[in-house]
Amino acid sequence: MLIVMDKKATAEQIAKVVQTIEARGFTARPIPGGDRVSIGILNNEGPVDPAHFLGLAGVKEAIPVTRPYKLVSREVQPQDTVIRVGKVFIGQGHLTLMAGPCAIESEAQALTIAEKVKLAGGHIFRGGAFKPRTSPYTFQGLGLEGLKILAKVRKTYDLPVVTEVMDNETFDQVEQYADIVQIGTRNMQNFSLLKRAGQSQRPIMLKRGMAATLDEWLMAAEYIMAGGNPNVILCERGVRTFVRHSRNTLDLSVVPVVLKESHLPIIIDPSHAAGVRDQVIPLSRAAIAVGAHGLIVEVHHEPDNALSDGAQSLYPAQFARLCDYAQRVHALIREQEEEK
Amino acid sequence: MLIVMDKKATAEQIAKVVQTIEARGFTARPIPGGDRVSIGILNNEGPVDPAHFLGLAGVKEAIPVTRPYKLVSREVQPQDTVIRVGKVFIGQGHLTLMAGPCAIESEAQALTIAEKVKLAGGHIFRGGAFKPRTSPYTFQGLGLEGLKILAKVRKTYDLPVVTEVMDNETFDQVEQYADIVQIGTRNMQNFSLLKRAGQSQRPIMLKRGMAATLDEWLMAAEYIMAGGNPNVILCERGVRTFVRHSRNTLDLSVVPVVLKESHLPIIIDPSHAAGVRDQVIPLSRAAIAVGAHGLIVEVHHEPDNALSDGAQSLYPAQFARLCDYAQRVHALIREQEEEK
Amino acid sequence: MLIVMDKKATAEQIAKVVQTIEARGFTARPIPGGDRVSIGILNNEGPVDPAHFLGLAGVKEAIPVTRPYKLVSREVQPQDTVIRVGKVFIGQGHLTLMAGPCAIESEAQALTIAEKVKLAGGHIFRGGAFKPRTSPYTFQGLGLEGLKILAKVRKTYDLPVVTEVMDNETFDQVEQYADIVQIGTRNMQNFSLLKRAGQSQRPIMLKRGMAATLDEWLMAAEYIMAGGNPNVILCERGVRTFVRHSRNTLDLSVVPVVLKESHLPIIIDPSHAAGVRDQVIPLSRAAIAVGAHGLIVEVHHEPDNALSDGAQSLYPAQFARLCDYAQRVHALIREQEEEK
Amino acid sequence: MLIVMDKKATAEQIAKVVQTIEARGFTARPIPGGDRVSIGILNNEGPVDPAHFLGLAGVKEAIPVTRPYKLVSREVQPQDTVIRVGKVFIGQGHLTLMAGPCAIESEAQALTIAEKVKLAGGHIFRGGAFKPRTSPYTFQGLGLEGLKILAKVRKTYDLPVVTEVMDNETFDQVEQYADIVQIGTRNMQNFSLLKRAGQSQRPIMLKRGMAATLDEWLMAAEYIMAGGNPNVILCERGVRTFVRHSRNTLDLSVVPVVLKESHLPIIIDPSHAAGVRDQVIPLSRAAIAVGAHGLIVEVHHEPDNALSDGAQSLYPAQFARLCDYAQRVHALIREQEEEK
Repeated sequence: MLIVMDKKATAEQIAKVVQTIEARGFTARPIPGGDRVSIGILNNEGPVDPAHFLGLAGVKEAIPVTRPYKLVSREVQPQDTVIRVGKVFIGQGHLTLMAGPCAIESEAQALTIAEKVKLAGGHIFRGGAFKPRTSPYTFQGLGLEGLKILAKVRKTYDLPVVTEVMDNETFDQVEQYADIVQIGTRNMQNFSLLKRAGQSQRPIMLKRGMAATLDEWLMAAEYIMAGGNPNVILCERGVRTFVRHSRNTLDLSVVPVVLKESHLPIIIDPSHAAGVRDQVIPLSRAAIAVGAHGLIVEVHHEPDNALSDGAQSLYPAQFARLCDYAQRVHALIREQEEEK
Repeated sequence: MLIVMDKKATAEQIAKVVQTIEARGFTARPIPGGDRVSIGILNNEGPVDPAHFLGLAGVKEAIPVTRPYKLVSREVQPQDTVIRVGKVFIGQGHLTLMAGPCAIESEAQALTIAEKVKLAGGHIFRGGAFKPRTSPYTFQGLGLEGLKILAKVRKTYDLPVVTEVMDNETFDQVEQYADIVQIGTRNMQNFSLLKRAGQSQRPIMLKRGMAATLDEWLMAAEYIMAGGNPNVILCERGVRTFVRHSRNTLDLSVVPVVLKESHLPIIIDPSHAAGVRDQVIPLSRAAIAVGAHGLIVEVHHEPDNALSDGAQSLYPAQFARLCDYAQRVHALIREQEEEK
Repeated sequence: MLIVMDKKATAEQIAKVVQTIEARGFTARPIPGGDRVSIGILNNEGPVDPAHFLGLAGVKEAIPVTRPYKLVSREVQPQDTVIRVGKVFIGQGHLTLMAGPCAIESEAQALTIAEKVKLAGGHIFRGGAFKPRTSPYTFQGLGLEGLKILAKVRKTYDLPVVTEVMDNETFDQVEQYADIVQIGTRNMQNFSLLKRAGQSQRPIMLKRGMAATLDEWLMAAEYIMAGGNPNVILCERGVRTFVRHSRNTLDLSVVPVVLKESHLPIIIDPSHAAGVRDQVIPLSRAAIAVGAHGLIVEVHHEPDNALSDGAQSLYPAQFARLCDYAQRVHALIREQEEEK
Repeated sequence: MLIVMDKKATAEQIAKVVQTIEARGFTARPIPGGDRVSIGILNNEGPVDPAHFLGLAGVKEAIPVTRPYKLVSREVQPQDTVIRVGKVFIGQGHLTLMAGPCAIESEAQALTIAEKVKLAGGHIFRGGAFKPRTSPYTFQGLGLEGLKILAKVRKTYDLPVVTEVMDNETFDQVEQYADIVQIGTRNMQNFSLLKRAGQSQRPIMLKRGMAATLDEWLMAAEYIMAGGNPNVILCERGVRTFVRHSRNTLDLSVVPVVLKESHLPIIIDPSHAAGVRDQVIPLSRAAIAVGAHGLIVEVHHEPDNALSDGAQSLYPAQFARLCDYAQRVHALIREQEEEK
């Protein structure tokens, strides 16, 4: 942290800041500049809260210098985290394709779609049993029954499954049935849920909050890792901006930054970013081209009758085409990376 | 909902949309226009998901026409909700001032600040026992011990207390000690928590999510009301934008819109919006002037030593001045309203 | 500027950064920290471009420490700028109310509205002669004829007038007829226009760009002042965010920050922020309460027939009430300021 | 446009709205719904301003139904616009790579970089002669001298050149030297400049405004086309959001929407979106993969000494690699498109 003083800060004010820093156990290092003094804070472990200093007399700004995260950081762990789920790998050079309906609606629906996903080349089946819905009056998911259908999908088609957990009460249940447990965008800073996820044996797919900064997202992952669970998959699904031509704005620039700052795998959800089917295939190709480790997309055999999010679900034939596209773009990118 | 068709949509495509609408139990009303057809959806109870129609061939747009909320809506309940906590009223013509530290740090700290709050004219004491923190490595609150200190504050100074609940596991505890239970910005769409809050006997103060639209916020309140708890207080605390001169952008334009759309009281948290002390008093005056029912502000007797959010906490003398300012601005606004 | 190096930056990389800084004529001061080195840049006049250093090997971040603006800064000029237009003052303790139609539509329209504005207590008449319109197919303003009508308004009612200039070709004309020349939000960074404004004898009202940071806005004002024109009035009119319940999000937190950072007067345009009439009076009161020096609002005697922006225009009776409200809120705020 | 009435709107209020619509020359078509009436507006040519109706008593909302643009729309012109500059084509199946320094600094600098661009496979040379700069105190470009250097580049390396125009005063000059005239992000709604561009014989590259919606951007292009110039190239360069890990947020989801809504070519500027070199190659690959018609990137042979934007400029060797990557990703995408 660097404390920048006002041009007119007095010697007393500077001394008070130094003293406040040292009272908190850090080292203060004043840096006289051309027209104002700055004070560096050294020997801090973990982040320093700028709020401690911003209110002191003569202080103009408090600028964080180091990143607040540790365990998720590539500075701490240089090699990529690769997560294994059955025969499927996530991270590093692998391309992992997850697909399925927004919500599990019935056994027949899930099995029908899962067969298509499997045939198309999908690696992991997705489907919501507990659904976070904006309105209390819309379909909230099948709950436990949905989880049991997922188990049947896994067994029938040898597909690992990923599904969302919404609270600590149902965490045990979800954990029992899911191969990967998803924490949704609205719960990215549900710290109680993150702590519980830290004690899970399952890999956690952590979706980015709708307006989360990179630091907040990585700190949410840090909660899970600090709790003892090293298997975190980051998932970008679009952020909220002024833009109205897509439901959210897919932030693909976050991918190279995550790859640089962290060792965790990152996958992209183009379906929730787009909100409409037309954008899903182009955005998927872009996601692979920018360097993401995989995709999670919505697929439905009868999207017009889906209980939720039909408009953004691909038809199975589109998903098959997407798998083919994605593999070829990925192979090209891998080849290019190796040439470097 | 209005379905707008492409200019070149065929009669078959239009018939398919009509049929899809009616298959979901609604009435479809085609409206031939100058150069394209639109189709109105009638007889729906509650919101219709645009996703059901956006993917159909020939459909250009699906435009929601009615608001999705019911119980929170002024169309359903024309008269203002007024909430009573002990001798304190919240809503309608009342001005309610809530203040206290960000976090309860010790009994001595809480009692010292509470005394100042009481003397200054504050009506309700705030203080966090369970703290949602971005980093797992920073102070997470005193938990149950903090709740007990709040009980002591209530008893000692006859001040009702408001404190945040973070999960369902600790809801019973918080409910037992708090007069008003707060749901924080990061949990605004933690639907499991909202459902539990719907069963509570306590009024719930629901902070707006960091990037929540008005509809999403009111729908979160709808969850609580639909669960059986009519006592919801809305709290605006700034939203996330590109702006960097304040921690968040306080959205005061939401106040007249909430007053028009809903019967629920709305209060403003200028401390979290600002992030620095300097902006708190001006924004508080603006909040009253725009028509809010009250304020919740952070006050600390030694902000430089606070365990969290010191920079945005007012000194007790500043809070006393703020109470005086707020009462006078409020009286003036009330007078002006009555002249109309 | 502070250059923060990677933890693993080598001595050679640090030396290269030092050398690059000094090659640009600045002084480099390395600051060895606990786990990484930072390098301060001293003796720079004006802002340093972080882009010069961000690309060097071993550099993690380049953090600006000083503000880029000079002439607009309160550090350079501690006393408030007060601008005089005829008998009207803008800035410091004055409250200045500007009002009129969005666009000048005819002499009769302008005179009718101006009479109402004058009677209600408005100080300055606003009205567009050159209109920036999103669509090339909508009314673009009366141009020179509009300016002449403004001159008639000024003469008839002894009201100074403010109107927008859109380009350098018509600047001479606008300057000849207007008492205050407005630069609109879409031209805030039209640097050729800013340079021309710097040579004008007229005060310039500089609207904030739709997504401008505080620094960008003040730097646009700096262009005008650096060109030789000290009379700049800042005008906040709402910024673009994800919010949809108002046309733009009025950023009132910018007011206390501007008052602290700059000596220039700041007024608020609630009409363009709101987009609908209902929000204008509450937001106007809030604007005065937060400390702004005045308002610019749209008023029309027949808003339903206005050629532009009718929905956000106040009726004359509403404006009269607003003037009364604004004066009383302002008097109260002034009184409170003096008590401090 | 659809006017939605309040649930309690009276028959008189509805009649007044109908009458207001018809007074403006449109046709009103009331649509009685379940619990409220809506009124469709028909027979409008071009967009209808919602502001005309929003203020009427009993009106709840005014919802635009048709798009405001005409000439830029694919509904009006189904086939792709392909723009030819010398031997280079822009649009449809072509991939066009534009590169060069942010600013022309000297003849030697420009020629050195142009040679690298040519050798690497770049098609068009970019370089700023007139530079829009946030600060009046930083390098503003070489002006006419810069244009003459561009002419020399064109002649020496047979590379068409693109450069920015900042105002109408210098438009003739820029037009004389440039093969493509760029309108920058800060001038996207400088309507005087757009009108002048409409009279130009040169293709115009129109950068998207920093916070422009798709409609605003296409309407800016509509100004140019309505003025008589059919050769408009759209350029996405990142939009302003809350995100801080990249300078702007590159909005790649706009590409499939532009391709659907308009016939104009769209190219991507990853350099200004990223702000740092590391992100440029990944974002470039993503831009091609999402379906854009080309790239414009910054290249500098000595970025550490560049007068502007060094940190985001690629080294020539990186650009050569990028050209290779881009061609191969483009070939793959083309192949996939054809398979469909």
